[in-house]
Amino acid sequence: MKNIKIAYIGGGSKMWARVFMYDLALTEGLCGEIALYDIDIPAAERNRKIGDKINADSRTVSKWKYTVCTKLETALKGADFVVCSILPATLDEMAADVHLPEKYGIYQAVGDTVGPGGVLRAMRTVPLYEYFASEIARVCPDAWVINFTNPMTICTKTLYDIFPEIKAFGCCHEVFHAQEFLCCVAKEELNIPRPDRHEITIDASGVNHFTWITQAKYKDVDLLALLPSFMEKYYEKGYGEQLGFAPDDFKNNPFLYGNKVKMDLFKRYGVLAAAGDRHLVEFMNADWYLKNPETAEKWLYHLTSVDYRRKTQSDLIAESELMASGKKPVNVKRSDEEATVLIQAILGRGKVVSNVNMPNRGQMPDMPLGTIVETNCVFDSDSVKPVCANPLPKAVTNLVYRNAMNIETCYHGIKTRNLEEIFASFVNQPLCSTLGVDDARKLFNEMIQATKPYLKDFYKKLSI
Amino acid sequence: MKNIKIAYIGGGSKMWARVFMYDLALTEGLCGEIALYDIDIPAAERNRKIGDKINADSRTVSKWKYTVCTKLETALKGADFVVCSILPATLDEMAADVHLPEKYGIYQAVGDTVGPGGVLRAMRTVPLYEYFASEIARVCPDAWVINFTNPMTICTKTLYDIFPEIKAFGCCHEVFHAQEFLCCVAKEELNIPRPDRHEITIDASGVNHFTWITQAKYKDVDLLALLPSFMEKYYEKGYGEQLGFAPDDFKNNPFLYGNKVKMDLFKRYGVLAAAGDRHLVEFMNADWYLKNPETAEKWLYHLTSVDYRRKTQSDLIAESELMASGKKPVNVKRSDEEATVLIQAILGRGKVVSNVNMPNRGQMPDMPLGTIVETNCVFDSDSVKPVCANPLPKAVTNLVYRNAMNIETCYHGIKTRNLEEIFASFVNQPLCSTLGVDDARKLFNEMIQATKPYLKDFYKKLSI
Amino acid sequence: MKNIKIAYIGGGSKMWARVFMYDLALTEGLCGEIALYDIDIPAAERNRKIGDKINADSRTVSKWKYTVCTKLETALKGADFVVCSILPATLDEMAADVHLPEKYGIYQAVGDTVGPGGVLRAMRTVPLYEYFASEIARVCPDAWVINFTNPMTICTKTLYDIFPEIKAFGCCHEVFHAQEFLCCVAKEELNIPRPDRHEITIDASGVNHFTWITQAKYKDVDLLALLPSFMEKYYEKGYGEQLGFAPDDFKNNPFLYGNKVKMDLFKRYGVLAAAGDRHLVEFMNADWYLKNPETAEKWLYHLTSVDYRRKTQSDLIAESELMASGKKPVNVKRSDEEATVLIQAILGRGKVVSNVNMPNRGQMPDMPLGTIVETNCVFDSDSVKPVCANPLPKAVTNLVYRNAMNIETCYHGIKTRNLEEIFASFVNQPLCSTLGVDDARKLFNEMIQATKPYLKDFYKKLSI
Amino acid sequence: MKNIKIAYIGGGSKMWARVFMYDLALTEGLCGEIALYDIDIPAAERNRKIGDKINADSRTVSKWKYTVCTKLETALKGADFVVCSILPATLDEMAADVHLPEKYGIYQAVGDTVGPGGVLRAMRTVPLYEYFASEIARVCPDAWVINFTNPMTICTKTLYDIFPEIKAFGCCHEVFHAQEFLCCVAKEELNIPRPDRHEITIDASGVNHFTWITQAKYKDVDLLALLPSFMEKYYEKGYGEQLGFAPDDFKNNPFLYGNKVKMDLFKRYGVLAAAGDRHLVEFMNADWYLKNPETAEKWLYHLTSVDYRRKTQSDLIAESELMASGKKPVNVKRSDEEATVLIQAILGRGKVVSNVNMPNRGQMPDMPLGTIVETNCVFDSDSVKPVCANPLPKAVTNLVYRNAMNIETCYHGIKTRNLEEIFASFVNQPLCSTLGVDDARKLFNEMIQATKPYLKDFYKKLSI
Repeated sequence: MKNIKIAYIGGGSKMWARVFMYDLALTEGLCGEIALYDIDIPAAERNRKIGDKINADSRTVSKWKYTVCTKLETALKGADFVVCSILPATLDEMAADVHLPEKYGIYQAVGDTVGPGGVLRAMRTVPLYEYFASEIARVCPDAWVINFTNPMTICTKTLYDIFPEIKAFGCCHEVFHAQEFLCCVAKEELNIPRPDRHEITIDASGVNHFTWITQAKYKDVDLLALLPSFMEKYYEKGYGEQLGFAPDDFKNNPFLYGNKVKMDLFKRYGVLAAAGDRHLVEFMNADWYLKNPETAEKWLYHLTSVDYRRKTQSDLIAESELMASGKKPVNVKRSDEEATVLIQAILGRGKVVSNVNMPNRGQMPDMPLGTIVETNCVFDSDSVKPVCANPLPKAVTNLVYRNAMNIETCYHGIKTRNLEEIFASFVNQPLCSTLGVDDARKLFNEMIQATKPYLKDFYKKLSI
Repeated sequence: MKNIKIAYIGGGSKMWARVFMYDLALTEGLCGEIALYDIDIPAAERNRKIGDKINADSRTVSKWKYTVCTKLETALKGADFVVCSILPATLDEMAADVHLPEKYGIYQAVGDTVGPGGVLRAMRTVPLYEYFASEIARVCPDAWVINFTNPMTICTKTLYDIFPEIKAFGCCHEVFHAQEFLCCVAKEELNIPRPDRHEITIDASGVNHFTWITQAKYKDVDLLALLPSFMEKYYEKGYGEQLGFAPDDFKNNPFLYGNKVKMDLFKRYGVLAAAGDRHLVEFMNADWYLKNPETAEKWLYHLTSVDYRRKTQSDLIAESELMASGKKPVNVKRSDEEATVLIQAILGRGKVVSNVNMPNRGQMPDMPLGTIVETNCVFDSDSVKPVCANPLPKAVTNLVYRNAMNIETCYHGIKTRNLEEIFASFVNQPLCSTLGVDDARKLFNEMIQATKPYLKDFYKKLSI
Repeated sequence: MKNIKIAYIGGGSKMWARVFMYDLALTEGLCGEIALYDIDIPAAERNRKIGDKINADSRTVSKWKYTVCTKLETALKGADFVVCSILPATLDEMAADVHLPEKYGIYQAVGDTVGPGGVLRAMRTVPLYEYFASEIARVCPDAWVINFTNPMTICTKTLYDIFPEIKAFGCCHEVFHAQEFLCCVAKEELNIPRPDRHEITIDASGVNHFTWITQAKYKDVDLLALLPSFMEKYYEKGYGEQLGFAPDDFKNNPFLYGNKVKMDLFKRYGVLAAAGDRHLVEFMNADWYLKNPETAEKWLYHLTSVDYRRKTQSDLIAESELMASGKKPVNVKRSDEEATVLIQAILGRGKVVSNVNMPNRGQMPDMPLGTIVETNCVFDSDSVKPVCANPLPKAVTNLVYRNAMNIETCYHGIKTRNLEEIFASFVNQPLCSTLGVDDARKLFNEMIQATKPYLKDFYKKLSI
Repeated sequence: MKNIKIAYIGGGSKMWARVFMYDLALTEGLCGEIALYDIDIPAAERNRKIGDKINADSRTVSKWKYTVCTKLETALKGADFVVCSILPATLDEMAADVHLPEKYGIYQAVGDTVGPGGVLRAMRTVPLYEYFASEIARVCPDAWVINFTNPMTICTKTLYDIFPEIKAFGCCHEVFHAQEFLCCVAKEELNIPRPDRHEITIDASGVNHFTWITQAKYKDVDLLALLPSFMEKYYEKGYGEQLGFAPDDFKNNPFLYGNKVKMDLFKRYGVLAAAGDRHLVEFMNADWYLKNPETAEKWLYHLTSVDYRRKTQSDLIAESELMASGKKPVNVKRSDEEATVLIQAILGRGKVVSNVNMPNRGQMPDMPLGTIVETNCVFDSDSVKPVCANPLPKAVTNLVYRNAMNIETCYHGIKTRNLEEIFASFVNQPLCSTLGVDDARKLFNEMIQATKPYLKDFYKKLSI
């Protein structure tokens, strides 16, 4: 039984913390402390209580000591792993990120990664990560740091830029959806029962939420070669990879989509984009797939409004409260997330290959060294090493590079607190491609205004 | 007196050939043969006759033997230099390149470099350059090749890709305009007589027609540092660097402009874009500076219509005929072009530093190796070596890379005769940034149709 | 049951073919044809007969059809895998490679990789591999090619240089010895039963026979951190990693050694060299560890004389004959070699991480792109992808680079049949570090003379 | 008349300071202050007095104010240029550097760049340069810094590593000797009067004292192509490029040599090594050209003993004293050094191309980025930019890389005060190629002991 300490930063208002606790509870051979740190202390307390319920659950294999820390330093002290999963500011600020641009004709499907919303969210998040990184460097420099916060790329960038020796990677499940989609392809084209996602091996590379699969195999079957035939059947009506959902269920649940964008991109570029369609569309010119809600509907996905998120969030908090107080039982079961599997591998319990976000040190030779890229990595005892990815087609490299370099520009602008440089990233966002420079400036200033309380401590100037 | 042979490919219908002949006539210590090869044989003949008149002119210092070759091989045989300056197809095809996109709301200021027009022009030009390059490899592999044809970048790329040992570079005078503009800045801000362009030293880098000056000096004065003060006075009303013209003369002459775009970009990025504004605007999102003719006017430039070019061209041909027949005297005088200066340097007559287009071998570390970039180069005896350029700001690197990689994609698509890959470059052109994918396809097909006779020998498929 | 064809080039006179056949016989779920091609046809016939005996053996799980091909093309036709394992020329030529330099005071422990012997062996082998590569390109371009022949690096280089799209890698078991050695360290320092080699995970990188381990773990124990204490006990007397042997058994068996060189290098550089000591010493200045047989003995290893090899070889052939004729039973058992495991992974039956030789595409950022390097790779369905290795210490990078670039120089010299360039590699071999240039020339010429019959078809000039 | 301040660090006991003062006195259009800083204050005073005599000389064009500063800060304050030219420790320590290794059979021709002497000298010099660099960063960060001190490469490395924004380059006249040699080749082979060095244009690259010329032109004549014929006549007897000296004058003056090593290397590699032979031999295995004094003599050069240097130095000091006191007239004449020409170019008075030492940023794509390399650079107003060099032959790249990486290792060892890492560089010096590891350790320790007083303030440990 290996005894470890995990510092968990944030997670108070997130489903994800609970999923992680379930997975840990079901991980054999591990135990120790989970130190919860959240600026929302009641939320952390709630998680602690849920943790205790999980410990008491009969399905639980590994029991953990849950503690709530009011200081980051206390949580980090002695940590073997640090998990970061925060919501920068509140859904009110996210509402501005996502919906304010609409008056300029700019729509966002998610609004937390790139596009105007991604830039503003980065402006709030990076200064917090500067602090996390310097505290980790000071208090637990040997800990492995797992980031789940969006914007993923720029958070991971901050960690490495502030503390270059950090052992950090960014984890995201979006590529899993593409693997699930490929399971569907295998099922339909090979007339076999749908395989498990882990039976699909892929070579994916790009930036988070905009990765591309250049090679995909189920046993020795080339799955990409099956796509043209699959698309003859499903291109028009779509195909949802999520079990139990129909292709047009996206109309009621904006987290669903019909994969039509993905199929269209495959037609155009011959490689398979690997995140959910709602993410993909934000990395390309607005008029390609996200001109307005009608275009979105045509491409078989919907925009995720922040009102929808508010509803989801309050349901989740309510459920958490019920669970914390014992009025609703916890539901200890294994998820499809990989964090605990990766932790096990890092602890020396079996090699794993999975796609995560790390600084480019050669794994994507067409991206600048030091930019954060997502590729396969080998996880092994105290070691996460990127695997050299296949080159992407030139045209796709161009799309990826534009976003990667926008993020680098944005990061450099935030780091130096230079609004004009941040704006250079803002105006060059593909989702801003139909915006004139003057309008872009106006929008940028309005968006800053809307999230001002969370920026004023970090930036001297708050308009350009 | 050094005796050399220069093969001149094209130039029949161009002012430029005459300028080059004047410059050669005034170059001391050189003589030899100029072998004229043009598919328009009468045009070549006309140039030959003008050459003879130049030889007879009293101002002429060096006399040359002008010959007309009907076969490329004959022209190349024994050549020390090969000059390429062709018009691919006619102004009718160029009219389609430039004006057809207007019905989709896409305007072009020049239409021969990037944007939809640049892509179509490349589709016609690259196959011709494949032929030129293979003939040069076979017939005169040691010759120095000077390219003047647009699209400059992709022509130079073709030469090096087909014959990697070629000694070629692409020459363009657009950066000289930025140097002239800096002369104006020096004059206005230092209260001195306008300096000569050669007194301004710069570090410029980028791709042709989209280079950026990161450092500019007149003696030991930092000229970029003077720009803010200069712009306070001239940003609104503009400032034309061409002698004898007022800022708003662009209304009658589309080759003029008020440099307002250049000044605006300097405000945004802190470095000075180095080509004429009418070129620069084509490398950025349409809505930034080229939404429509009204926007153009607001930014103090006009679009160059092909009708305007037709008029200019027929005037030039008429003038050439008069000169060829002796009815109008030749006007032997030195131009501001540098080709003959560079030829002298290559012949071992003095080092020169000037900006030309060559494959990237490290001079722009942020661009992929092998892409064609424009930077300073040192010209010396049988040697043209790139000078390492200052890095560009990240945001500018991103703009340059997007265009450079579009050209790489376009080249690869043409090389492999793959229309879908060419289209991937087409739809990602910044000037197409407000175009949906379906409309882009339609436009692409229509433009191919309009230039079909010049494509059908090279491409199996002519629509996507 | 997956049906495949394996072409086996060479192997006639090698133990290794037999080991491979045993392993294949014990691999579940595979069957098909093994096409044996060897210029020594009786040897191939012998292997075919042994194959039949293996098929008849009760322990055999998978039966294979063994065929002897007299033409390479026949063997390659339809092959899924090509295995190359040849002896270039005979042991007579190897005797010259190894022993001729002794009269100049140069001793070699192995003489088949680098040093004067390695260069001469490369001169004989590369032209054969040029032929293999061009036949593979023509006949079975999709086959996976596994090389076992030494000099490993230059053979793999030839394959990729002649046919860049080849799917090839070079396999060598030397790193396994370092893993075994680390098992011993774990056993001694942790007081546990000796772990299995596969429980040790490492990050190794370098060139074949000169790789370096920068990280080594047994579960979560850092094995390199245990070395200082281990060396206090065993540095002087040595420690043999081979089961059942004492540290000084190297005196009777030159394939054994006491790992004292490895321990000394760890003291000097802080990282663990990963091949057998007898290989390592050939990559460094002669006077460091291989001044003469007495120095070798001091460092607890012996030189492998070619007489010893002759004896071993004739024993092996005799044994093969007995087995082929059924006078001696075959001994079907699983070996420690990984070839069949890698084949299974490539066929989509489970990911494997193992160290092999491939062109550098970023996995060793300090080595030139395109040089052949040995690092971990991920083996998966139709895919072998290098894993980014830790950087080596600068001083070690320097030692590795020198050898890697010597091999590149040697390869380029052989490719262009330029003896002077081959000699530039020869004279710069670390084992030649005490040789003057004139003596080096003499020795080079004498060695060429000794192996002339195998060179004269390929090189116009046979002395410099 | 441009008024500037030059801080001159060191130079007290050097001929070179006087040469520089003469050149400045003859430079039109410049004046200002020369602030002399030397730990040997009387030496600085002597130079100040000589400066005053120069000011009084009738040939002097530009008068300078010479001041002696006892604090570095005072000298640097307001400096436009900083010139560094120091002797680390005294000739006593240099005697140990050069002669102590002889008892181990290691001879050095110069002993101040690489080899055992170079390493020890670096150990003394780098800590001083750490101080200079941090003071320059603090006091005059915009000044241009010109280094003349050896070991050139590691001094320049220190400046850039401590203060990455520094504007520094290292100047060395050794390449000029190769240009002079090429003038001799032109004279002999073309039967023309010996051209001036500035008429020879070259592409040279490598590390200081070990650069290689890949292209050399006199007007449009390829000089390297003339070498084979030249060498037929002069290979055996040698050819001294220094005016007024016979090939065997090296016997009386160790600064002379017959260029036989240079010619031999050209035979072997096809490119021309560009420093004096006495420097070149130290970068290659001892037994190639520097086994012992007899070998040196055979190759037409002699070793420079430190006794010879002592004599020269005391003559120079005596002469300086005479000049300072007015007993001997100053001899104001222009030298062949380029420092003042480069200063003029940096001040915006004409472009110059010359070879200097700067960090590799792409000018030598085969060397690691950031290593200090010597190539052509363009000097212009406030700008020194490297020119992309031709690639060197692989075998030469290998020789250069080994030395460059030894220096990087040595620098890293000194920076981290890690004797074992410095030793890793020491034992891998080509001049140590016949030394066993144990003997190398002994020698290293003895050499440290001999120079201890100059090391003890910087290194905690003084033996390994």
